Amino acid sequence: MDFRLSDEQLLLLESLDELMERECPPGYVAECDREGRFPTEFAQALADNGFGMLGVPEEYGGVPVDTLTLMLVKERLMKNGGPICLFTQPFLVDTVLSFGSEEQIAITMEYVKRGQVAHCSGFTEPNAGSDNSGLETTFERRGGKVHITGQKSFITNADAAPFMMCLTRDPHQADPRKAFTTWWVPMDAPGIKVSPIDKIGWHMSNTCEVYLDDVVVEEKDIFGKEGEALKQTMKNFEVERLLMASASLGQAECAYEDAALYANRRMQFGKTIGGFQLIQQKITDMAIKIENMRNLVYKCAWEHDNGIAIRNSSAMTKLYCARSACEVIDDALQIMGGIGYTNDCRISRLWRDARNARIGGGTDEIMYHVAGRGLLKAVGC
Amino acid sequence: MDFRLSDEQLLLLESLDELMERECPPGYVAECDREGRFPTEFAQALADNGFGMLGVPEEYGGVPVDTLTLMLVKERLMKNGGPICLFTQPFLVDTVLSFGSEEQIAITMEYVKRGQVAHCSGFTEPNAGSDNSGLETTFERRGGKVHITGQKSFITNADAAPFMMCLTRDPHQADPRKAFTTWWVPMDAPGIKVSPIDKIGWHMSNTCEVYLDDVVVEEKDIFGKEGEALKQTMKNFEVERLLMASASLGQAECAYEDAALYANRRMQFGKTIGGFQLIQQKITDMAIKIENMRNLVYKCAWEHDNGIAIRNSSAMTKLYCARSACEVIDDALQIMGGIGYTNDCRISRLWRDARNARIGGGTDEIMYHVAGRGLLKAVGC
Amino acid sequence: MDFRLSDEQLLLLESLDELMERECPPGYVAECDREGRFPTEFAQALADNGFGMLGVPEEYGGVPVDTLTLMLVKERLMKNGGPICLFTQPFLVDTVLSFGSEEQIAITMEYVKRGQVAHCSGFTEPNAGSDNSGLETTFERRGGKVHITGQKSFITNADAAPFMMCLTRDPHQADPRKAFTTWWVPMDAPGIKVSPIDKIGWHMSNTCEVYLDDVVVEEKDIFGKEGEALKQTMKNFEVERLLMASASLGQAECAYEDAALYANRRMQFGKTIGGFQLIQQKITDMAIKIENMRNLVYKCAWEHDNGIAIRNSSAMTKLYCARSACEVIDDALQIMGGIGYTNDCRISRLWRDARNARIGGGTDEIMYHVAGRGLLKAVGC
Amino acid sequence: MDFRLSDEQLLLLESLDELMERECPPGYVAECDREGRFPTEFAQALADNGFGMLGVPEEYGGVPVDTLTLMLVKERLMKNGGPICLFTQPFLVDTVLSFGSEEQIAITMEYVKRGQVAHCSGFTEPNAGSDNSGLETTFERRGGKVHITGQKSFITNADAAPFMMCLTRDPHQADPRKAFTTWWVPMDAPGIKVSPIDKIGWHMSNTCEVYLDDVVVEEKDIFGKEGEALKQTMKNFEVERLLMASASLGQAECAYEDAALYANRRMQFGKTIGGFQLIQQKITDMAIKIENMRNLVYKCAWEHDNGIAIRNSSAMTKLYCARSACEVIDDALQIMGGIGYTNDCRISRLWRDARNARIGGGTDEIMYHVAGRGLLKAVGC
Repeated sequence: MDFRLSDEQLLLLESLDELMERECPPGYVAECDREGRFPTEFAQALADNGFGMLGVPEEYGGVPVDTLTLMLVKERLMKNGGPICLFTQPFLVDTVLSFGSEEQIAITMEYVKRGQVAHCSGFTEPNAGSDNSGLETTFERRGGKVHITGQKSFITNADAAPFMMCLTRDPHQADPRKAFTTWWVPMDAPGIKVSPIDKIGWHMSNTCEVYLDDVVVEEKDIFGKEGEALKQTMKNFEVERLLMASASLGQAECAYEDAALYANRRMQFGKTIGGFQLIQQKITDMAIKIENMRNLVYKCAWEHDNGIAIRNSSAMTKLYCARSACEVIDDALQIMGGIGYTNDCRISRLWRDARNARIGGGTDEIMYHVAGRGLLKAVGC
Repeated sequence: MDFRLSDEQLLLLESLDELMERECPPGYVAECDREGRFPTEFAQALADNGFGMLGVPEEYGGVPVDTLTLMLVKERLMKNGGPICLFTQPFLVDTVLSFGSEEQIAITMEYVKRGQVAHCSGFTEPNAGSDNSGLETTFERRGGKVHITGQKSFITNADAAPFMMCLTRDPHQADPRKAFTTWWVPMDAPGIKVSPIDKIGWHMSNTCEVYLDDVVVEEKDIFGKEGEALKQTMKNFEVERLLMASASLGQAECAYEDAALYANRRMQFGKTIGGFQLIQQKITDMAIKIENMRNLVYKCAWEHDNGIAIRNSSAMTKLYCARSACEVIDDALQIMGGIGYTNDCRISRLWRDARNARIGGGTDEIMYHVAGRGLLKAVGC
Repeated sequence: MDFRLSDEQLLLLESLDELMERECPPGYVAECDREGRFPTEFAQALADNGFGMLGVPEEYGGVPVDTLTLMLVKERLMKNGGPICLFTQPFLVDTVLSFGSEEQIAITMEYVKRGQVAHCSGFTEPNAGSDNSGLETTFERRGGKVHITGQKSFITNADAAPFMMCLTRDPHQADPRKAFTTWWVPMDAPGIKVSPIDKIGWHMSNTCEVYLDDVVVEEKDIFGKEGEALKQTMKNFEVERLLMASASLGQAECAYEDAALYANRRMQFGKTIGGFQLIQQKITDMAIKIENMRNLVYKCAWEHDNGIAIRNSSAMTKLYCARSACEVIDDALQIMGGIGYTNDCRISRLWRDARNARIGGGTDEIMYHVAGRGLLKAVGC
Repeated sequence: MDFRLSDEQLLLLESLDELMERECPPGYVAECDREGRFPTEFAQALADNGFGMLGVPEEYGGVPVDTLTLMLVKERLMKNGGPICLFTQPFLVDTVLSFGSEEQIAITMEYVKRGQVAHCSGFTEPNAGSDNSGLETTFERRGGKVHITGQKSFITNADAAPFMMCLTRDPHQADPRKAFTTWWVPMDAPGIKVSPIDKIGWHMSNTCEVYLDDVVVEEKDIFGKEGEALKQTMKNFEVERLLMASASLGQAECAYEDAALYANRRMQFGKTIGGFQLIQQKITDMAIKIENMRNLVYKCAWEHDNGIAIRNSSAMTKLYCARSACEVIDDALQIMGGIGYTNDCRISRLWRDARNARIGGGTDEIMYHVAGRGLLKAVGC
């Protein structure tokens, strides 16, 4: 066994540290969060410094790296207090490369290169999430065109993305395994209305309701194959979950460091509060959880890189990391006391942002559903 | 034993239900919260309907009721989704009646009668909270006047209150037991600067930093007796904690009902989500916690009404209720899924508001400090 | 509301304290536990002092008291370190009185009066517990007699009881609602084999496997009505659960007192360990849980005494109390350190005994099943 | 990074699996546990197959392996349901090799080679554990001999060991840093009385009180250097903690497998209980904890093998593993239901045995003390 990162990985993280120190100071992130605006400048800086093309094949101008390295970058971005909405391409690019047409890939790469949102994922609906059976957005062919009508919910970046990968159902196909198709819909098409949702955290990117009223696309705008959308979607869930876990890990690390520094400085009853057992206990429990998260994320990424199936382990990793990040950050907030409840410290933002990870990308309950059955199957009887 | 509420208590709560249905619909509270403004209209309505003078002696035009009844009102206010910042007079009035001069009492009653903030509590400082030894705001007598200089932190309603009960230290008094005096400071006095803090929740009332730069008051503006401020402050901590626990209880009940209704309605995988064991488990654990909170609050109030010391039990009650409310509301949010993370439901507001109770009025850690030592002392050796 | 016990209740508990101080010292209980024998002497003393007939109607020579009082006695018995296997008659007597024949009642009362085990409950089987559908013990009529064959599992006191209430199935009755009948089987009947099980705790009473191989009883030995056994069984589950919760409460109180006394006495690093925050935290959390348990048990008993349905509340009470007792006792053991892990203190026995309450009388999981669905139903939709 | 075990490690574990299948079936361990006797036969078999000399330098006839490999063996021993009291030499041998005289080393190796207990550790006393300041066993020189008097508590294997490493205090040395010396005391020396303690688990080896009444040893029986005993003791705490964590990990794995198999087989309400969400949740949480334990143990061992300080990480690893093993095994017991509470399954033994790890080798609270302060120091201020 070897728990060491490679020199290349360490160098990459160091260069990210330097970039963020320069281009992403805490005040900048706090300002974007308060104003509810996308951190365009830093997104651009990330792109300019090559982070945007990590994990993209060379033929598209990218720098191929393994999954572990991508996760390390996401973790570090969050550990340094960066915006939660950035560095999503490990998941998004993969999907496009797997199923997109040449044109779709080319367009996506253009946006990614510039550090801009390339597309949004239009899967969730009011009555369809992890359970797709209630999906109500339909497509129908009329007059040589494809007509799409329906409503999408909780669509991240729908107001900024030029395209949506829109999951639809063929109302004339009774077999659910063949009924779903994804379309590559331009977001400026007539009939689309986007309405941002006011939410607890994630203020730097908008989550939106998207209404599609007889939106017309071409046959060439199909994404992947007709009737195979569910299979396509599945494929990338695992890496998405891992990426979310990496973000949770980084958020927890960020909060831990702030809280530990504060505990070493803040005086009460004649000593630093770090001198009290109740704080030492919190710090220890936080550090143990972070170490567990780190090990889970790294090992799961390593498994993926080594061809080992991660269906169970990615669900377990997301479940543990999302929940533990909330706990660690909540402890950090508690250590900071009154200040922790204000926006004078970034822990309050982390506290609001981190909660989403237990819902998005499959809830805690879905993770139990996936992992619990998978684990029992693996044991035999 | 008898666990029944009295007919008077039931009637009072019923009338509050009716008032709130009329004057405090969910949309109104959501709007106040979003706009960050004090719910003046409903505060007025509460006052107009007599709730503001509950617990105030008859001689001041009030309606004397026991502590239990006051707690029931606070609980119900929150259970019905009301603003967290209202119905604080059980704590505030008590302090003024105990130690205030006739003039201070008269002024306070005027404001209370109108449903307005009467004063704010100026205890906490950057280096002084539950530990008063670091208190740095001083008073000195010069030219027949009293000069106050210092800084107060996390002062609720400092921007709305006409007066502050300002805890100060006599720099010439070495004995800490005699060094502290409270002054009744008009908030429009020259030298006072108030600066609201941006915080996670409690958006309907401002928490402020207050800077006092050579603020001048008269001798008559002393609150209580010189050198006895700490003793005075202590006296009301216990009821304040109980009141906070009642609020936590009500918040948890509000979230529970919304989540349970949602679980009965929301369909996934062909049945209501309430049909899944993971949801049934959450609902059961939430209900048990709420039942525990309710019992703790009622019993502690009953003890207070019956002359039984509540130093330990009020600390235990606040500790359990604050923490359990956060847990119950977090579970409710999780049951609501994506919607729970948005301001389309009030659970998100409850989630942000409730967190404060584990910090304000003495942190969880201080509650352990108080109760832990008290309990061990009670056991003997 | 009134949280006071009545004078009669206080007097009764006081007399129990005195009796136990005299007849049930810690050494006696430890000895019975170590030797795995029923505490016959103390059972006798309880009977001689009238505790055995509490809750029994006057017409049978008993002293009728309300449910709350019965629960108080069970709690106090355990709080004083008494044997877990005693004072079970509140549950057992009730069943016999509800459904037994005059002869069955008379026999039962004889045993109860003498402080002896009157009968055992033969419900559970290898494939039938809370789920009765797998029940395999059958009865058949042949030659004017009733022939019973099957196997019963985890039957408490089967080796000491003169009779078993034996739940059986009519193999010729297809409708499950009418298929179950209970028989009053003498344990010395030919064909019965009893085999005690070696278990973690509850060493003072045997839990047994009972094998019934063509056991013959008379028609008059039917208990209750033919085909109505399930309904009969249900009726008493709720009080049984409440009684178990009372025991859990008393066990937790016993452990708490021992641990708190130890924390006040044991010196480490120059002070009593009660002076450390980590111990104060444990003591506080333990005390809060005990207070919650107490409130739940008393209120649920009060509800039962006042004709309020306790289906949900008895399940919630048992679930919380069983689990919390395990937690409190585990904390107590931890406070005692190495000594806690030995039989030199009674906490180790409590630790082993208490664990059973999360399984017997319906597991935690069954409590969630019962309460979760009941609570959701109560909320409407 | 590389999470793969080496081929040598895999082969070693495979040979252990085979040995245990042959020489250590579940029935054998259950019998030793029930009869409270040391598993002499299997200890011998381990020694005969070379496991006893793993980690011992070649010059003593041993097979040097890294710390990770030693931990893997301990883990697997427990995972396969082996006796908790075996394979302790990684810790014991190391101490002797570091500080023992040639004679002491030679004697130790003789016993180790034969799979017998070589010595016991006489550190703990009624008033001295992690806090040594209360140590009361003294040594004094009189007539050319060394006289030792005192009492030792919770001494594992004191009744089986031929020698004790006996920590003593020089009553004439005021400086505590120089006052402690360890003596190599033959357990058959006059004046020694050994009294086994009846405890919750660990029934296969005795934990004893040892009374030393003017026990006489020679100068040559000093262990290490005079006045340096504390330093010597410290050195091996970290590996002892890691070894305990490995045992906890293996115990958890054993319980997990038994419970998962049972969940796949046991039918209730018409399906396997593994089909219920509450069981799936337990299984998932158990598996996550086990994965975390595994990662912590392996990484900490790897750190030790790579010269990285493990003071903090060994404390965190022991704390997490001891606690999580108890939780996992408790869940496993719950899944097994009534059977889990009996000795018909080995989970009940694991449940009793595992609890000790949160006390022995430094309690949970001491781990917080060590790690909490170390972690805060590492963060700076």
